[in-house]
Amino acid sequence: MTVSPPDAPYVSVELYAQVQEFYARQMNLLDGSTADPVAWSRTFTEDAVLGSNFQDAPDTGQPAILRSMREALAHIAAQGTGDFRHWLAMLDVQPQADGSVRTRYYGLAMATPPGGSLRIRGHVLCHDELVRRAGRWLVRRRHLEADGVPA
Amino acid sequence: MTVSPPDAPYVSVELYAQVQEFYARQMNLLDGSTADPVAWSRTFTEDAVLGSNFQDAPDTGQPAILRSMREALAHIAAQGTGDFRHWLAMLDVQPQADGSVRTRYYGLAMATPPGGSLRIRGHVLCHDELVRRAGRWLVRRRHLEADGVPA
Amino acid sequence: MTVSPPDAPYVSVELYAQVQEFYARQMNLLDGSTADPVAWSRTFTEDAVLGSNFQDAPDTGQPAILRSMREALAHIAAQGTGDFRHWLAMLDVQPQADGSVRTRYYGLAMATPPGGSLRIRGHVLCHDELVRRAGRWLVRRRHLEADGVPA
Repeated sequence: MTVSPPDAPYVSVELYAQVQEFYARQMNLLDGSTADPVAWSRTFTEDAVLGSNFQDAPDTGQPAILRSMREALAHIAAQGTGDFRHWLAMLDVQPQADGSVRTRYYGLAMATPPGGSLRIRGHVLCHDELVRRAGRWLVRRRHLEADGVPA
Repeated sequence: MTVSPPDAPYVSVELYAQVQEFYARQMNLLDGSTADPVAWSRTFTEDAVLGSNFQDAPDTGQPAILRSMREALAHIAAQGTGDFRHWLAMLDVQPQADGSVRTRYYGLAMATPPGGSLRIRGHVLCHDELVRRAGRWLVRRRHLEADGVPA
Repeated sequence: MTVSPPDAPYVSVELYAQVQEFYARQMNLLDGSTADPVAWSRTFTEDAVLGSNFQDAPDTGQPAILRSMREALAHIAAQGTGDFRHWLAMLDVQPQADGSVRTRYYGLAMATPPGGSLRIRGHVLCHDELVRRAGRWLVRRRHLEADGVPA
């Protein structure tokens, strides 16, 4: 997905707000003492593909996505990085002819160790393909591009 | 308030946008040269309760909430921390049966001293209970959980 | 534009979401490998004025605004600051009697060099005047106030 040109029509307000809300809830399922990786993985379709510029190969399917996230959370916990938080912003939404939507947004990962100071751990450019199933948005495809990764 | 499950219905777009707007205005009343702690305190109900994991006891009632905020602002000014800013994001809104709403969101506090560099001062997980009075949202209960505070 | 008082009416949800979307797209046109300063400059009216507390004089007119931005981007590229990102938040929208809107929001600029860590480069308080032309919002006037600039 390229950046929306300045003269692209605005999307419906219902769609824009729902996607914001979807992401707030999805990320909330990853962070802090209430993290629930299984519930998080269910915000992806069963056949979803999650790739990035910091992995060798994309994860294909809910189980693989869940496994990778569990490994990442265990790695974070082992490092003692403390309270981990994801922030998203600068959301651009592009509805597609088949009812799916493509999104582009920024993500920041940050963590505060016990008694220590917050450290920003990295910035990611995110592109998603979302589909609607039973009235809920799910991620069918996600690509993460971490800033500062040497090409 | 727990995290919304992925299959929770989306709230009405009017509610979601109003709550975003409420928070932008509320926080604007705390920051910078235009800070107005009295006007800020009026975004709480008269009997509001504001507690946190970094205070001994919660503040109860608008006057106590205002007094604590004035002390905090005086403390910040005395430290010469410079331009202070609050950012909020990752808003989850849960309407309650009685017309109130519960919210969960993240906050970042940051400051830039004159001629210096911006420093992030901390991350907070926030839970509010909002009520509607004369067409405006007010905070009836707020709980702040700063990251990195040793248990 | 002063801060909205707590009892200001909420703006229509269509307006609030459109302005959010406008800013996400406008800023996306400035960042990263897909930056397109010409398309970005067209999100300003032809006679737009862009001023700040870190310039000697405001830029008047689309060509001057474009020229300044190109210089800034060339300067950033020459410094090797890496992937540059703009985040906006805490949006307050005030509709005016003539159909224009005034906005107040915060901006954060950050960059990650290749193989390095993200650094926040500064915080800006932004005031815009937006006008609607052919169904799209455009900036007619922008004032940026960088934090930490000694008076």
